Amino acid sequence: MSEHETLVDRYIDAWNEADPARRRALIAGAWAEDAAYLDPALESRGAEAIDGMIAAVQARFPGCRFRRTGPVDGHHDRIRFPWALAPDEGEPVVSGVDFAVLSPDRRLASVTGFFDA
Amino acid sequence: MSEHETLVDRYIDAWNEADPARRRALIAGAWAEDAAYLDPALESRGAEAIDGMIAAVQARFPGCRFRRTGPVDGHHDRIRFPWALAPDEGEPVVSGVDFAVLSPDRRLASVTGFFDA
Repeated sequence: MSEHETLVDRYIDAWNEADPARRRALIAGAWAEDAAYLDPALESRGAEAIDGMIAAVQARFPGCRFRRTGPVDGHHDRIRFPWALAPDEGEPVVSGVDFAVLSPDRRLASVTGFFDA
Repeated sequence: MSEHETLVDRYIDAWNEADPARRRALIAGAWAEDAAYLDPALESRGAEAIDGMIAAVQARFPGCRFRRTGPVDGHHDRIRFPWALAPDEGEPVVSGVDFAVLSPDRRLASVTGFFDA
């Protein structure tokens, strides 16, 4: 598994982690200080806001989990990867592509999400 | 046509414009001051460097033109769109997706290209 895939899978794990302490540890490992997230529906900056955003999404989609649905494509400090949010057995409720810029220490500095369906 | 599509089509026109004066005018209209471009093969910042990069790509792929191959998807100050570089009659030699961040005056501040094939 590449460095980029390891980072993205830690990011996905954070989106799925229901335990607050474990989720905050995953966020600290995957996201840079003062990192930002922006998609058509959500916006947050910094670990505390990102943690609150993830908790709110988990509450809104109970029984659903995020998963990476394809390889991580990257060059320089930029990556992109496809993902889906779906119940354990069922079709995705949302899917899309995330685009990210990495920090110098190879964590996520900025993530932009786009929805495909 | 949306504001985003108009902007992207001007950007595509700049990639295809062989006349240096017209190309520089298209670049000035589509790109913000000190704008940056980054893909797996190319990197440039500022109008003069972007112009030189485009001229070099035109020289490398004679007879080919860029075209947008799907809608422009955007939210906040972020857009993405698919494109291809192909000869007038023939299969694309390169295709991909560009992701861009817009400047406050709605020009391109940063463009990141990814190659699909």
